[in-house]
Amino acid sequence: MKAEIISIGTELLLGHIVNTNASFLSRKLAELGIDVYYHTTVGDNPERLVQSLRRGLRRSDIVITTGGLGPTVDDITIETIAKLLGHRHVKWIPNKTGTAPGLTANFRNSMIVCLPGPPRELEPMFEKDVSPIIRRRSGSSWIIKSRTVKLTGLAESKINLKVRDLLSLKPPTTVGIYAKLGEVDLKIMAKARSERDALQAIRRIERKIMARLKGYVFGHDEETLEETVAKILIKKKKTIAIAESCTGGLVSNRLTDVSGSSKFLMAAIVTYSNKSKEGILGVSKQTLHKYGAVSKQVALGMARGVKHLIHTDMGLAITGIAGPTGGTKSKPVGLVYIAIVTNKKQLVEEFHLRGSRREIKFQASQKALDLIRNNL
Amino acid sequence: MKAEIISIGTELLLGHIVNTNASFLSRKLAELGIDVYYHTTVGDNPERLVQSLRRGLRRSDIVITTGGLGPTVDDITIETIAKLLGHRHVKWIPNKTGTAPGLTANFRNSMIVCLPGPPRELEPMFEKDVSPIIRRRSGSSWIIKSRTVKLTGLAESKINLKVRDLLSLKPPTTVGIYAKLGEVDLKIMAKARSERDALQAIRRIERKIMARLKGYVFGHDEETLEETVAKILIKKKKTIAIAESCTGGLVSNRLTDVSGSSKFLMAAIVTYSNKSKEGILGVSKQTLHKYGAVSKQVALGMARGVKHLIHTDMGLAITGIAGPTGGTKSKPVGLVYIAIVTNKKQLVEEFHLRGSRREIKFQASQKALDLIRNNL
Repeated sequence: MKAEIISIGTELLLGHIVNTNASFLSRKLAELGIDVYYHTTVGDNPERLVQSLRRGLRRSDIVITTGGLGPTVDDITIETIAKLLGHRHVKWIPNKTGTAPGLTANFRNSMIVCLPGPPRELEPMFEKDVSPIIRRRSGSSWIIKSRTVKLTGLAESKINLKVRDLLSLKPPTTVGIYAKLGEVDLKIMAKARSERDALQAIRRIERKIMARLKGYVFGHDEETLEETVAKILIKKKKTIAIAESCTGGLVSNRLTDVSGSSKFLMAAIVTYSNKSKEGILGVSKQTLHKYGAVSKQVALGMARGVKHLIHTDMGLAITGIAGPTGGTKSKPVGLVYIAIVTNKKQLVEEFHLRGSRREIKFQASQKALDLIRNNL
Repeated sequence: MKAEIISIGTELLLGHIVNTNASFLSRKLAELGIDVYYHTTVGDNPERLVQSLRRGLRRSDIVITTGGLGPTVDDITIETIAKLLGHRHVKWIPNKTGTAPGLTANFRNSMIVCLPGPPRELEPMFEKDVSPIIRRRSGSSWIIKSRTVKLTGLAESKINLKVRDLLSLKPPTTVGIYAKLGEVDLKIMAKARSERDALQAIRRIERKIMARLKGYVFGHDEETLEETVAKILIKKKKTIAIAESCTGGLVSNRLTDVSGSSKFLMAAIVTYSNKSKEGILGVSKQTLHKYGAVSKQVALGMARGVKHLIHTDMGLAITGIAGPTGGTKSKPVGLVYIAIVTNKKQLVEEFHLRGSRREIKFQASQKALDLIRNNL
């Protein structure tokens, strides 16, 4: 079955908003085994909308429109569709998160589905009401499932080498690789006759990935690294205190995004000045003077200091140069030291990160969270 | 002049990526006074691409394609376009940030522009090479300029009342209102025969906005609230220390996103536990016990404590309940106290915020930054 998506709204054509609905619907249709051949965006103009609808209904089995259903004069879909459909029967779809209902109707051999524009109305409406209708209609019992395996701590090129055979798999089961800042995702997609078969095919591939890359895998699908770290800390009943310099509070902010973080995060101290590294954390003046604020020795001193001050199981410290200024030849922008101190061990790692100030901060926070994960 | 954008790439139709190029180009074309009538997305399929190109060139003066220019087998644009254009003359556009060049060509009465898919290649190429060509070709010397005035601290509905007359202005000069989390933007757009006239029209409206809402305006266009606050702190040579509870380091993280923040941010302390509020900041056990950690008194105690500990001009403290758990009837989720202490004054404000944990954290950080701004 072929589908196309027609997005309606002058604000899209003016570039005021990005069309996230089209990508959401495309992902969902792919999971149902439906091929999407076109996305079209038209403004709030009845004539061009009718042309696009007619063309869509001629060449596709399913046409899904988004937007243009509201109560304002700009919202023209309903009127236009009504004219196009004549006396054909329309089925309304209730809107539980907004006011304008959606609708589905048959038109010759095709089906038209009209959904509201706001994602928080469109998404639940599609999942609950539209998806079952399309699944029934498509007749084919093909189902596509996907699962994303999320990795950190190894470069994309190296991951690529380890799973090259999987990346060249052909349908019904495929694997894609997507590099993000401080993270690489492997997305497994499987097409099968039943959900069980699809999930089984995915598990088979996932086991291979885990056998080769286990240590670098921190989560799946929507999971974040901070959620994984929080889960382990809570499970192991460990407490942590953090001393941040170049990350400026980002590690603490990410961990406190997780509900329940007060169970393990006792305190975080952002010591931007040398004086505060000395005064609050007790890093010695000699160490700061001899090795400089961005050094292995100071990172360790900060981790020891914050652990001692807050009385936790683990102390974490980050010091580095986020840039764009402040770098020198021997200590360039992107140089970051991260130290971890527990009752049993003390370690410090050196990183050379690249990018903008915010990118370096984020990557350093990613490395820090990963170090916690690997040392619990 | 009418334009349309044809985006090429199966990854768009699968929903793997969101089409930000279409909105970027639409904004830029609007600024050049060009009307965009359609966005179309097609996969890496020569037949459907040719059909879309033919239709585009028939109905629009300018067709801009994005994507499909790379060296891989999937990238089919060049070959397809070459066939379509026959022996017509093509002008290549150099790619300074990638490998695949762009191209422009005339086709009957229309013009076709092909750009690479990656935004970091497409955007500079459009700005530097394509924009002047389109401006020349459009002949009309209409120019559209825009300026966004960014406000915080006043609800959208109240801002709406204050500028209702401006919001109903008709072209050539219009004002739009856009509500974001903890921020409201007023976007002024002016169409004129010259850049000077357009900017003058914008300034006229901006003066009216400033006369009515000055205290709430924190910046323009791409400026962030943290940048504004940093600028004022640096200009006034003031130092600050922060004690964060419910925001978990977000205020500190936002301020340290600004290069040069080490000039004013001496330290930030995230005191998640009562013990650390007491131990590090010196908030008295009695105050914590009598009023609870989320109270005016503790907020003030934290602000005083952190200012005293770090010896700064200003102490800022935030305590509240970010949720989703931890709320009670008398102290519900979203209750936040923010205190500021300087050598001259001490103040504390109470806020009732709504949303998810992350949304409450962000709004609280926004209120905190705004309080700094208003008390320097």
